[in-house]
Amino acid sequence: MSILTGMRVVESSAFVAVPLAGMTLAQMGADVIRFDLPTGGMDAKRWPVTRDGQSLFWAGMNKGKRSVALDVKSPRGREIAQEIICAPGPDAGLFITNLAVKGWTDYDTLSQRRGDLCMVQLRGDRHGRPAVDYTVNPQLGFPMATGGKGSADPVCHVLPAWDCIAGNMVVSGLLAAERHRLRTRQGQLADLTLKDAASAMLGNLGIIGEVQVNGETREKHGNALYGAYGQDFLCADGRRVMVIALTLRQWKTLCRVTGTETDMNYLSGALNADLDTEAARWEHRAAITKVLTPWFAARGLADFADLFDKAGVTWSVFRSFAEAVAEDPDISTANPMFAEIDQPGVGRMLTPGSPFSFAGYGRDKPRPAPILGQHTEEVLADVARLTDGEIGRLIDDGVAMQPGDRLRMAS
Amino acid sequence: MSILTGMRVVESSAFVAVPLAGMTLAQMGADVIRFDLPTGGMDAKRWPVTRDGQSLFWAGMNKGKRSVALDVKSPRGREIAQEIICAPGPDAGLFITNLAVKGWTDYDTLSQRRGDLCMVQLRGDRHGRPAVDYTVNPQLGFPMATGGKGSADPVCHVLPAWDCIAGNMVVSGLLAAERHRLRTRQGQLADLTLKDAASAMLGNLGIIGEVQVNGETREKHGNALYGAYGQDFLCADGRRVMVIALTLRQWKTLCRVTGTETDMNYLSGALNADLDTEAARWEHRAAITKVLTPWFAARGLADFADLFDKAGVTWSVFRSFAEAVAEDPDISTANPMFAEIDQPGVGRMLTPGSPFSFAGYGRDKPRPAPILGQHTEEVLADVARLTDGEIGRLIDDGVAMQPGDRLRMAS
Repeated sequence: MSILTGMRVVESSAFVAVPLAGMTLAQMGADVIRFDLPTGGMDAKRWPVTRDGQSLFWAGMNKGKRSVALDVKSPRGREIAQEIICAPGPDAGLFITNLAVKGWTDYDTLSQRRGDLCMVQLRGDRHGRPAVDYTVNPQLGFPMATGGKGSADPVCHVLPAWDCIAGNMVVSGLLAAERHRLRTRQGQLADLTLKDAASAMLGNLGIIGEVQVNGETREKHGNALYGAYGQDFLCADGRRVMVIALTLRQWKTLCRVTGTETDMNYLSGALNADLDTEAARWEHRAAITKVLTPWFAARGLADFADLFDKAGVTWSVFRSFAEAVAEDPDISTANPMFAEIDQPGVGRMLTPGSPFSFAGYGRDKPRPAPILGQHTEEVLADVARLTDGEIGRLIDDGVAMQPGDRLRMAS
Repeated sequence: MSILTGMRVVESSAFVAVPLAGMTLAQMGADVIRFDLPTGGMDAKRWPVTRDGQSLFWAGMNKGKRSVALDVKSPRGREIAQEIICAPGPDAGLFITNLAVKGWTDYDTLSQRRGDLCMVQLRGDRHGRPAVDYTVNPQLGFPMATGGKGSADPVCHVLPAWDCIAGNMVVSGLLAAERHRLRTRQGQLADLTLKDAASAMLGNLGIIGEVQVNGETREKHGNALYGAYGQDFLCADGRRVMVIALTLRQWKTLCRVTGTETDMNYLSGALNADLDTEAARWEHRAAITKVLTPWFAARGLADFADLFDKAGVTWSVFRSFAEAVAEDPDISTANPMFAEIDQPGVGRMLTPGSPFSFAGYGRDKPRPAPILGQHTEEVLADVARLTDGEIGRLIDDGVAMQPGDRLRMAS
């Protein structure tokens, strides 16, 4: 039992945002059914892949879902998909998609089958143009403000941040719509675009105001934390650390633990600046960094890590992905969020469950992603309510696909 | 009326994630009450600020909320805050925080006042150590995989992506907990850490598998889209564009519109590689880029923008923040998500509403952020059910603060 046990969500999706939304709901206990073509969705081979070409990305984004392989290019396949989306049940009739197709998975068509359908559709932009994380991000200005001060070249992020944000918004939108349905019995279409989710954040973070009210555009400032103090330092052993003094307490702690209080007081006087204020720390960050640099250059990570942790410094070490997996106990089975599980076709690997823990429910062990079509027969039987004979014919006709080595289930 | 009208959420927070969560709920129609010290929260002066020192960040993150200024360092202030959090009502008793303090805003204490309280608490990491976006991100490996191939230096993201992701998860967690309460009448504590939200994404994106299964750590690869084809190009007019060929259709369209089909066919033959596959496009991205570079170098943005849009190319232009606000119609009142509103203390500026549109509800015009303590009197009267006399004494004693120029409301 988990917090959303009993809820059924159907997903028609590809790539990051909506698959992530469905996976998030599945890890909170919902029965999430994703349907794809028998040849796989557009993201079936998405990188990273194993040496055999199995998608580690697909495995990561579809954990705990049920997979139905349906030829939705055929009229019969479409009808069955609609049947699954609109199947009865007070906790069903929930649909998320970033592939809405006019005429058969748009809200007007689907809601004729189930009037109280709750659907969240994520689109690229409000004009119906294609847009992905990699095209939305450059338009908004973040890559031109990323990286070292010297360079005019944009630096794009590696984390598909807008997709991850929009994916979590799809979850919120669906839960809000279903909440509304519980109270009013009305269905709901929630519409969201990746571009709008991202553009809104420009305003939320104060960046539009910076441009419009202050007449400024933020420049590149390397790895400095914007607007207070935070900087990366190279240590004697070649490791690099990030140190943060956003709040006054963080600033005082950093100065105390590095023994730079006297130097910083002297600096305050010399600059005629109150370094206890965020604005002064930001303005004079280069001078502060100059004071701190020799301290880190004289020490290896092991010389101060415990000291920093005990004193409550807000800091961290930089790692490569491999170092993160190798040396961070939070990314290991020491963290109850993670478990080693067998992912069919991929092998055994460390796999995260839901980052949430809900009181009263133990943490669910993460479940693997399905093989494509793994649950075709059971979903056609239990959700679409087809007979065994009908299911057999659909498979024979290539409208539905169940991986061959699996026993036919009785309906 | 909006999708969450009637719901009441109380927020004790600072900085990005939980303020963003409350703002998201407020823009979906919830009554969100944020309480802060009469001197302001830790983020009251967070940059960017106007030339007068008014926080544009605070204005962005607190739109549409009610603000209560309470001295929660005093016992009476704490009691009133608890009263507000636990006030009766079937759609109230919802609390989000990233500042949970043992003894007075922890779940055990609060749930004694209201047994069915639903609370989401966001913490730094599972050990109780301080952690912020700027320290979580370096640990996981993203900065070491960001930026140009040549450099060993990490490049930190400018968007606080993990905060934005975790903030949206706080919304989902609260809605899931309240859904559960509607069905079971039970309260709920949902616990989430910023570090876990971020670490889970390493697994979700397949990066842990890349390390564990393939024995590889992803290197820096500049602005190339990982695992398929996507690259930035400099145009004849000095503008830079991003072009994406993630799917086969995107690839075919890109080749057709740039007239490089023959060259790419020749390349496929010469490399003995099927560029119609993502893997081959990724492996041979440098050769593909070489073919495309002269095409962009010979043209200004205006020469191909319409052509690309009409052909459905997945592409975008790079902009600074100022250019984005100046030239993108999606970041203007031409987009119904945005409106020009007056933000007290800041002035008139373009402000985003909710990125969602829910069918049946028009888009709400964005509301400004409150002045600190703007709603102290009305919330003490309506939610904490104090008398006018009690409220007056609390203000006289400095336990509560209402900005001076406001008329006292009758309770």
